[in-house]
Amino acid sequence: MYLADEAWPDLEAYFESETLAIVPLGSTEQHGPHLPLATDHLIAEAFATEVAERTGYLRTPTVTIGVSPHHRQFPGTAWVDPPAFRDYVESFVRNLTYHGIDRVVFVNAHGGNVQHLREVGRRLRDDDVAYAIEWMWDESIPDLVDEAFARNGPHAGPKETALIQHLRPELVHDDRFAEARDGGAPNPEESVRVRNGAATFYDAVENSDNGAFGDQTDANAETGAELFDAASDQLEELCEWLAARDWDELRAPERVSREG
Amino acid sequence: MYLADEAWPDLEAYFESETLAIVPLGSTEQHGPHLPLATDHLIAEAFATEVAERTGYLRTPTVTIGVSPHHRQFPGTAWVDPPAFRDYVESFVRNLTYHGIDRVVFVNAHGGNVQHLREVGRRLRDDDVAYAIEWMWDESIPDLVDEAFARNGPHAGPKETALIQHLRPELVHDDRFAEARDGGAPNPEESVRVRNGAATFYDAVENSDNGAFGDQTDANAETGAELFDAASDQLEELCEWLAARDWDELRAPERVSREG
Amino acid sequence: MYLADEAWPDLEAYFESETLAIVPLGSTEQHGPHLPLATDHLIAEAFATEVAERTGYLRTPTVTIGVSPHHRQFPGTAWVDPPAFRDYVESFVRNLTYHGIDRVVFVNAHGGNVQHLREVGRRLRDDDVAYAIEWMWDESIPDLVDEAFARNGPHAGPKETALIQHLRPELVHDDRFAEARDGGAPNPEESVRVRNGAATFYDAVENSDNGAFGDQTDANAETGAELFDAASDQLEELCEWLAARDWDELRAPERVSREG
Amino acid sequence: MYLADEAWPDLEAYFESETLAIVPLGSTEQHGPHLPLATDHLIAEAFATEVAERTGYLRTPTVTIGVSPHHRQFPGTAWVDPPAFRDYVESFVRNLTYHGIDRVVFVNAHGGNVQHLREVGRRLRDDDVAYAIEWMWDESIPDLVDEAFARNGPHAGPKETALIQHLRPELVHDDRFAEARDGGAPNPEESVRVRNGAATFYDAVENSDNGAFGDQTDANAETGAELFDAASDQLEELCEWLAARDWDELRAPERVSREG
Amino acid sequence: MYLADEAWPDLEAYFESETLAIVPLGSTEQHGPHLPLATDHLIAEAFATEVAERTGYLRTPTVTIGVSPHHRQFPGTAWVDPPAFRDYVESFVRNLTYHGIDRVVFVNAHGGNVQHLREVGRRLRDDDVAYAIEWMWDESIPDLVDEAFARNGPHAGPKETALIQHLRPELVHDDRFAEARDGGAPNPEESVRVRNGAATFYDAVENSDNGAFGDQTDANAETGAELFDAASDQLEELCEWLAARDWDELRAPERVSREG
Amino acid sequence: MYLADEAWPDLEAYFESETLAIVPLGSTEQHGPHLPLATDHLIAEAFATEVAERTGYLRTPTVTIGVSPHHRQFPGTAWVDPPAFRDYVESFVRNLTYHGIDRVVFVNAHGGNVQHLREVGRRLRDDDVAYAIEWMWDESIPDLVDEAFARNGPHAGPKETALIQHLRPELVHDDRFAEARDGGAPNPEESVRVRNGAATFYDAVENSDNGAFGDQTDANAETGAELFDAASDQLEELCEWLAARDWDELRAPERVSREG
Repeated sequence: MYLADEAWPDLEAYFESETLAIVPLGSTEQHGPHLPLATDHLIAEAFATEVAERTGYLRTPTVTIGVSPHHRQFPGTAWVDPPAFRDYVESFVRNLTYHGIDRVVFVNAHGGNVQHLREVGRRLRDDDVAYAIEWMWDESIPDLVDEAFARNGPHAGPKETALIQHLRPELVHDDRFAEARDGGAPNPEESVRVRNGAATFYDAVENSDNGAFGDQTDANAETGAELFDAASDQLEELCEWLAARDWDELRAPERVSREG
Repeated sequence: MYLADEAWPDLEAYFESETLAIVPLGSTEQHGPHLPLATDHLIAEAFATEVAERTGYLRTPTVTIGVSPHHRQFPGTAWVDPPAFRDYVESFVRNLTYHGIDRVVFVNAHGGNVQHLREVGRRLRDDDVAYAIEWMWDESIPDLVDEAFARNGPHAGPKETALIQHLRPELVHDDRFAEARDGGAPNPEESVRVRNGAATFYDAVENSDNGAFGDQTDANAETGAELFDAASDQLEELCEWLAARDWDELRAPERVSREG
Repeated sequence: MYLADEAWPDLEAYFESETLAIVPLGSTEQHGPHLPLATDHLIAEAFATEVAERTGYLRTPTVTIGVSPHHRQFPGTAWVDPPAFRDYVESFVRNLTYHGIDRVVFVNAHGGNVQHLREVGRRLRDDDVAYAIEWMWDESIPDLVDEAFARNGPHAGPKETALIQHLRPELVHDDRFAEARDGGAPNPEESVRVRNGAATFYDAVENSDNGAFGDQTDANAETGAELFDAASDQLEELCEWLAARDWDELRAPERVSREG
Repeated sequence: MYLADEAWPDLEAYFESETLAIVPLGSTEQHGPHLPLATDHLIAEAFATEVAERTGYLRTPTVTIGVSPHHRQFPGTAWVDPPAFRDYVESFVRNLTYHGIDRVVFVNAHGGNVQHLREVGRRLRDDDVAYAIEWMWDESIPDLVDEAFARNGPHAGPKETALIQHLRPELVHDDRFAEARDGGAPNPEESVRVRNGAATFYDAVENSDNGAFGDQTDANAETGAELFDAASDQLEELCEWLAARDWDELRAPERVSREG
Repeated sequence: MYLADEAWPDLEAYFESETLAIVPLGSTEQHGPHLPLATDHLIAEAFATEVAERTGYLRTPTVTIGVSPHHRQFPGTAWVDPPAFRDYVESFVRNLTYHGIDRVVFVNAHGGNVQHLREVGRRLRDDDVAYAIEWMWDESIPDLVDEAFARNGPHAGPKETALIQHLRPELVHDDRFAEARDGGAPNPEESVRVRNGAATFYDAVENSDNGAFGDQTDANAETGAELFDAASDQLEELCEWLAARDWDELRAPERVSREG
Repeated sequence: MYLADEAWPDLEAYFESETLAIVPLGSTEQHGPHLPLATDHLIAEAFATEVAERTGYLRTPTVTIGVSPHHRQFPGTAWVDPPAFRDYVESFVRNLTYHGIDRVVFVNAHGGNVQHLREVGRRLRDDDVAYAIEWMWDESIPDLVDEAFARNGPHAGPKETALIQHLRPELVHDDRFAEARDGGAPNPEESVRVRNGAATFYDAVENSDNGAFGDQTDANAETGAELFDAASDQLEELCEWLAARDWDELRAPERVSREG
């Protein structure tokens, strides 16, 4: 069920029987020379839509601008600073609880959002207001992703490429895959500036000249479809698990006592 | 041109030659028993898309969650609190200026956002960072709107109904128009709680039981199409005017001196 | 009753029997070449004083510096930025509730404060702390004001001029009325920069060279006195109405249910 | 010269020739059973007015609500919390600098404001924006004050009583002086809860049952007048000194070097 | 008992039986040419350690960086701005209350921290969360300190010198005592820039060229040891007093009623 | 060189020739039944001290309280909330730049601080103020750590145990190693609550009953010493590399252009 498509009288029953909401979040940032800036928020929205349809759980609109200052050097990257992002998402979710929502799945497709969603989630749980889970599709099927492509990358690599080939093929520049690979960081582990165990970079451009990582020539829509289905299964399972929990299971644990 | 659909190399030329961005903003809030919660952000996005296509100016993704605490009593209304909204939009626009943007049209379709967009716009101009104009479609064609419908309303009335009938007819509950009118505030000026010149309400539900205002039975898709075209002309004209300004024309005026 | 003139033992009885406070707010900003910068706060204070005396309700000191960045270009305009204004007023009112105040009338005479007082008022009501009403004198007698003068203006026009002529004639430069009109924006609707329905200005000086609007030569103290009395009646009525409400009538409404 | 009484054209010359502003600040808080809550802001305003008249320097309106949470237990005490106070005053003064003001005398009559005005003053100086001095009348004539009364007190004692007797005798309850003394803390040094060198109180009521300190029966208007004149001389001298400084003398010192 | 040295199972019993914590705070700032920057935090830590050992009360780690912008001109002075300091200390103490702590002694050895610790303490008490006392060693034995040295100073004077001679003699440059005195402000009351009763300085360097005050040649370790013991007795007494209080004694007083 | 031990004249030469500072940060939080709460800050301080001595670079005092809400359930865990931590560290480092510091190594020994130090580091670099690197000892020698112990853990495992055995053996409860292992999460990968790729926990106690992870019985001081030396070498190398950089190498990269 998609919140924004409904008129309010048609939402009343949901809030009477359910307390879970699916909130998709992504970014609008460079994804190499071959993928659209929308990549992350398209992926998040697609998973949220798919699983909302499968399960009947409520999906909200997608937060499309995320925390992407590290991609700023590439034309068009849009972002908000971390405090603004956290406060916006926190306010959004707190206000959802007005309607009875007390558990949320952040369907997130941007690595740069993770820590901020966790920080917001902690505030909400520590205040005993809501329990939020941050979920990323590729984390849910790590083995499949590893098997699918020889050289993955954390950003704009074959896995994201395949997903957009599956979801929005018209937005993919297939003719730039080799360029993406050769002008970027085909072997991410070699490119990322880590020195003596410490990251010595802040921006993606310091690790990849064109903002892409991995070997994009490996990607294709079929594999994208398979990964999408497999991760959708994972998300579906997670939502069902979360919905089935008693609120008390989700609250912050009590203080520990050695005596017990 | 839609920012999110492009890959970064295809945006470079735009930022070299243009400094204007169109940023659509709306809300996800009750719009009576007959319209989707998305109404405002669908309208904003439609105008932004239309004029971006006509003119070639850059459009960003739509901010879909706005300042709607006054609709909270109706199931599903989503909102962020004003400080979070202002800071999110401000951070978003400030960061756009990294790419050379120095003028922005907020294509806004939610009255509750206006004052906050003006406040953000002032911060940006007073800091000499960017010049932003807040634009609402119905304000641009007030006479047409007045002529089109006998009993308009500030929210979820025939004008918004007609626009959604035109833009997304499948989301309109045509069979609830009479209900919308009769269960709401068909004559807004009679319903709005103003006492001794002062608003004595904070929430829409205090003025309309079902959240709708005006006479929705008057609405139809054809009128919606006409209004859409007429207001699009206005927005196009505004964008062209703004793009043609020298930066110095847009900056805050100097201090006044009587002697001159 | 004026809070600041009393010693604390003489206030105890009030807080035991009443829960209403009148809080006047204005600005210290240019009001054309003929009126003092104090105009707005003098007007607010005069109404608050008059009605406090008539009714016995408690009046607090006047907040004299408001949100007036849009008048900055004229020598002497003082202002605080919106976040500082909101937080100051909110803190002030929240702390009044320590003494049992749970309803407040903001007697406001500066348009630039309105939205901020409404935002603060919402915070207070949504937190179930206090119910605040923002009141402006000219909004309470719109017909009288319209009839009184041929060409009114939103700022430093004949209505404000007449009021100061009545309240503090020694501060009015009667010899500058023609200058105020001719060097300003005698026909405000023609001067205000609105383009395609959008405000394309942020500062008053963009609409009026000398900061005045309307035809000041129409103003006189007698009309000022009449308007003052008429609006005082309105404010008195509002205070009595507010004081007579049960707290439950003032609290935020419950969530809506279609089934009821 | 009083800012608020002037029309803007009459202020222009001041800002062309002078850069100093006098900003009076006080509180609205209990001052024992015999003095009005306005005591501090009346005193601040009186000194500012006197010296503005003597010298021609610009005086702004008075900030009447200060940091007085420590008097909250007494009916009517109004206050704002420290962050709101600091931000309001800072914004007010920063915005004054728009007109060319670069030095400010805070004519402050409330001890609870001191540290906050110093904190604001530091921000302004460290940002190289303005130089502000916090001044309290009794600190400027400590010997006179000591000689004038046998038993002074930090709050609502004979010195403040005498000043209000001089400035606004109609607001003084002369018949409650003995009550003020006997029901309060006639010997402050004995009453203030300090234990092992540490303050163990936060509120005035912990040290004085009726909020007064010292022996009020000693006070009279003549002494008040003398103290007022003497301290006015001090303030006048301070303003002249400050106005005569080069800006470079007022800026933050350079880093120290041992070698020199 | 020192919190940081213990493993968690060994702390459980403390929180079951006690609710007091000792929190040492100081600064890292210039202390003349002869004393280490650590002076204040070493002193605070030494007192906290001594009394925690004597009494068994829990001591936390020391906050070593405080509010010292006024010493910035001297090489090496480290500081945090006041809002950051207040929020850090407030968050630290609020979180201690999770374990049952409801009373705290701030063992503070830096004058610049005092007002901020009081402000934090007020927030905590007004929120009914914890009761915190700010304690400085020299305030607890003012007569002893006065007798010990002919010319004391508020900063880097003989009293602090003697304490570091006692506590960490290897960090004291004994050969620079005369330099400290002669290049600094040997007679503080003559050096501090106060004009017409108002402080006209913000930084220590404006009052002392080398940052030291008083006559350091008077200091010796024996006197330091005596002062340390005497002040430790005071702190011990204060802790025992505080621990013995009922929580109700420590809460904010009720509102005052003249009749009541 | 340790900042806090020096008197200011002895620091001047450093700031004239060097621009690097080493800032140690840790936490005060449970580390299983066998290690002190100080574990992380002791480790950070030890590395910072060692390398400051080896290289002569300046070390500041240690920030001992970090972001540890996830350990709150265990008695004694102290923490500050993320915004307070970030602002405190940011203010501290920004103020160090007053003295000429423009590069910082955060010697951090607490995983919970990492993202916050990176966020602060970004603010500083994006503002062109300073370049900060976050370094954790175990990340610098991952292979050695893996080889050293069969079952490591992210927290309170054998690697941290061995380090404290080396650095502060008297604080280690050797007799509780088996208890630490058996009552905790001996095989972390099996214990950490991850479901469908998403973390479904917020607190350590949800993954380990006693807060420890890994097999502590493997730890010994000799291995601790070896690891300490090896990681110290890494840190030394990092400091030398950073110190040798031109400032321009450390600044944020320019915008990307495809044309180049």
